[in-house]
Amino acid sequence: MVNRAIPDATVSRLPVYLRSLGDLPATQETCSSEQLASIAGVNSAQVRKDLSHLGSHGTRGVGYNVGELRAQLRQALGLTQGYSVALIGAGNLGTALANYGGFEAWGFEVKAVLDADGEKVGRIVGGRPIEKLENLEEIVGQRGISIAILATPAAAAQDVADRVVRAGIKSILNFAPSVLQVPDGVEVRRVDLSTELQILTFHLGGEGAV
Amino acid sequence: MVNRAIPDATVSRLPVYLRSLGDLPATQETCSSEQLASIAGVNSAQVRKDLSHLGSHGTRGVGYNVGELRAQLRQALGLTQGYSVALIGAGNLGTALANYGGFEAWGFEVKAVLDADGEKVGRIVGGRPIEKLENLEEIVGQRGISIAILATPAAAAQDVADRVVRAGIKSILNFAPSVLQVPDGVEVRRVDLSTELQILTFHLGGEGAV
Repeated sequence: MVNRAIPDATVSRLPVYLRSLGDLPATQETCSSEQLASIAGVNSAQVRKDLSHLGSHGTRGVGYNVGELRAQLRQALGLTQGYSVALIGAGNLGTALANYGGFEAWGFEVKAVLDADGEKVGRIVGGRPIEKLENLEEIVGQRGISIAILATPAAAAQDVADRVVRAGIKSILNFAPSVLQVPDGVEVRRVDLSTELQILTFHLGGEGAV
Repeated sequence: MVNRAIPDATVSRLPVYLRSLGDLPATQETCSSEQLASIAGVNSAQVRKDLSHLGSHGTRGVGYNVGELRAQLRQALGLTQGYSVALIGAGNLGTALANYGGFEAWGFEVKAVLDADGEKVGRIVGGRPIEKLENLEEIVGQRGISIAILATPAAAAQDVADRVVRAGIKSILNFAPSVLQVPDGVEVRRVDLSTELQILTFHLGGEGAV
């Protein structure tokens, strides 16, 4: 597959290009690499190199066809179909994510909310009852779940990740503040709110503290 | 200040080291660079190099004093005091963040929730009434706000960021899916949920789609 040959750094910019195309006026049919670069916040040589990995080279003096490029980006990113997601950990953050509702707009449907705490089971979050973590394997199989979002405490995250991997899930979005060890072939992306905030306060360097 | 000499890549690992120390048994008084490296998911030479930027060199054959190292990390990261935060954009994500409640545990207090939409003003989220975005400058001054969390739509994010910068804020955590242009001296960190999910689906490569 062509996908496998695309460098990770390029992959991480493809969603940015896709979103940048969405910022163009709806009537605009072609787009130069310079314009796309400017919206995306990268340089135009980078744009041309990244898009060449999709087999998209544009036309000299004209640029890229916006509709075609959008279709190529969506295809490369696997966004032409929907994905079923399990959200694991129904604490503050997990509940916030379950109630968020924005995932659906990008084609990700939360099909299960699970927690290890038996006392939470049955409570409704984001319109679904919380289910037992011990039923994970069965739920993954029955509902065709391919992505797990982890919002557990740090101390529990590795055990839960091991369990998620055993259940056959190969894609994990980790909100727990811990570094997960997973086998080859399993992809983990990390969203770490506390780290981002701490990097900001480092740069404040004592200013703004109360 | 010593902070200014620390490379960005090291800064991004300091929160990870701080959290890794929290994973040690409460009774453990010293910690080798190898143990810290193993918990943090980096190599031990990197740990020693990173911590040397804090003036922390450990003792050969003993390692680092856990209490001292924690204090040095918290000091370097500016975590010895609290910070006041304005959350801007009270849509789905902004509301989820306002209700999240986890920021307080790290010393970040949400002191204002603002929105440009007059119809939302006065509605309660996270225990606070939504306030008018046009009052931003006044609110920032009165409440000593030093960090803005942006959860606006992409199309509004740059205008809001310009306004935030004019109000004197130098640290922005951007959840809006757009690349912000800010003057030198303003630090932006970006948390982009849709991009992370799209990178995962790229790696799924068509598997798991429903």
